[in-house]
Amino acid sequence: MSVLVVGSIALDTVKTPVEEHSDLLGGSASYAALAASFFSPVKLVGIVGSDFPESEFDFWKTRKIDRGGVQRVNGKTFRWSGEYSWDLNTRETRSVALNVFEHFKPNLPESYRKTDFVLLANIAPSLQSHVLDQMERPRFVAADTMDLWIETTRKDLDALLPRIDLLILNDGESREITKETSLIKAGRQIRKMGPRYVAIKKGEHGALLFGEDEFFSCGAYPLEDIHDPTGAGDTFAGGIAGYLAGTVSTVHFTDLRKAMIYGSVLASFAVEAFSLERLRMLSLEEINQRYEMFKLMSQFEVST
Amino acid sequence: MSVLVVGSIALDTVKTPVEEHSDLLGGSASYAALAASFFSPVKLVGIVGSDFPESEFDFWKTRKIDRGGVQRVNGKTFRWSGEYSWDLNTRETRSVALNVFEHFKPNLPESYRKTDFVLLANIAPSLQSHVLDQMERPRFVAADTMDLWIETTRKDLDALLPRIDLLILNDGESREITKETSLIKAGRQIRKMGPRYVAIKKGEHGALLFGEDEFFSCGAYPLEDIHDPTGAGDTFAGGIAGYLAGTVSTVHFTDLRKAMIYGSVLASFAVEAFSLERLRMLSLEEINQRYEMFKLMSQFEVST
Repeated sequence: MSVLVVGSIALDTVKTPVEEHSDLLGGSASYAALAASFFSPVKLVGIVGSDFPESEFDFWKTRKIDRGGVQRVNGKTFRWSGEYSWDLNTRETRSVALNVFEHFKPNLPESYRKTDFVLLANIAPSLQSHVLDQMERPRFVAADTMDLWIETTRKDLDALLPRIDLLILNDGESREITKETSLIKAGRQIRKMGPRYVAIKKGEHGALLFGEDEFFSCGAYPLEDIHDPTGAGDTFAGGIAGYLAGTVSTVHFTDLRKAMIYGSVLASFAVEAFSLERLRMLSLEEINQRYEMFKLMSQFEVST
Repeated sequence: MSVLVVGSIALDTVKTPVEEHSDLLGGSASYAALAASFFSPVKLVGIVGSDFPESEFDFWKTRKIDRGGVQRVNGKTFRWSGEYSWDLNTRETRSVALNVFEHFKPNLPESYRKTDFVLLANIAPSLQSHVLDQMERPRFVAADTMDLWIETTRKDLDALLPRIDLLILNDGESREITKETSLIKAGRQIRKMGPRYVAIKKGEHGALLFGEDEFFSCGAYPLEDIHDPTGAGDTFAGGIAGYLAGTVSTVHFTDLRKAMIYGSVLASFAVEAFSLERLRMLSLEEINQRYEMFKLMSQFEVST
């Protein structure tokens, strides 16, 4: 089955302690869509300006990423610029220019409205809700969010949460939204705000998944060299949504466990190079190899 | 097989944001020995003063903890007092009185010297080495350490590392000893300092294990309420050493994986109450139940 992915499409300038690159393809939807496309066809929703490279549309075509929902309007594409600290663990936004994104109102093509799986990648929760308003009873809706929306549009976020199946957020955000220090308490409390499942991303420490009476914990893939952490979370979310859409019709906790691993695998590749460069040349075989490595590194009882 | 455990035996005063208790049994060897005793007989090495409660010796007897190597001398038992921050994630040492511990020189009884498994729980590395000097070719030696020794007796620590099989330390300590930010790089680098295996404890984020070409990552047991984190690391180390001594004759990476889970299980119980109170009334059945829970929460592919 297909997965609808809505989010930002941006041109990024990223500075790490060793490198700086500008005009890189970025944005939550760009990462999420490419990650998802390894497992299922993607219907992409977003907005770009007249400066957006045509070559990207061509690339999407080769990956079963339907750009029918991507509006191209006059003006400049959304631009973001950020700088990472020496250890790549924190980053500072240097500048944001919303440009064409400022008046973005996602309008779904008719052919998108019956998509069974939906990933509301990181954008304002009011836009995420607006997309859901246009959908005809999707089977599974995942949403990503960020500290900005918790701080500035909390009401919109609260209204969205009961409408989704899976909320994906990071450790700091889950503490912020619940005012709980313990991630275990936080995860359980966020479920009470609406989503059936909650995934908490912990960066190098892996991720946690909370269901009604179920819990899953996975480590991160052990990487020695990270080149650009940008988009790791979006890639994680895209991998999860894509894997589910491509593999199951009804999502159970067991499926989500595997989806979390595929999401982690995709994210581990994403950070090995700037922008989407590593994901562009990634093969399903490499993904599956790393998935098997995940098994080896987290199994402690081999059934004989 | 038995496991020899050497370390500190203390009387602790512990203050958390909600409770304060004094004259609690503490010290690295107390926690480690009790944890190990669930799986194998323990030969304990340490020193206590004349104020040390006789009842503790009686309790050890009931748990196959041999106190033949515990010196009882005139004077006061080692005392430590610490206070935890509001979220229990950091602590401050309020006072330390070495007392009889100041001139402690572990002298092993003849019957101890052929013990196959050794846990050098957290004490000065020179004392850890002194214990090894008296041993007759043990099969497996694990050692715990702490920031204090990395900072003040680095030479002694460096001399110890090639003599042990497994070094156990926490994330901050592994970064400190290697000057590496990445725990993956740190773990691999510490192996080059001597120990065949390195276990890095990450508190609520679980633990990592490094072997020559092997890697294992496990989460922490999801606890909502922690009452006293004191001794969690010592308990983890004790659980590992005890499990290995009680289960295998030659240690392979596969055994260490399971040992890490048992260590984590024991530690998760230890922090549920002050001092060793939870461990004292713990049953092997409860341990095994939580071990099974660990499987449920970390498995992502059920073999059919």
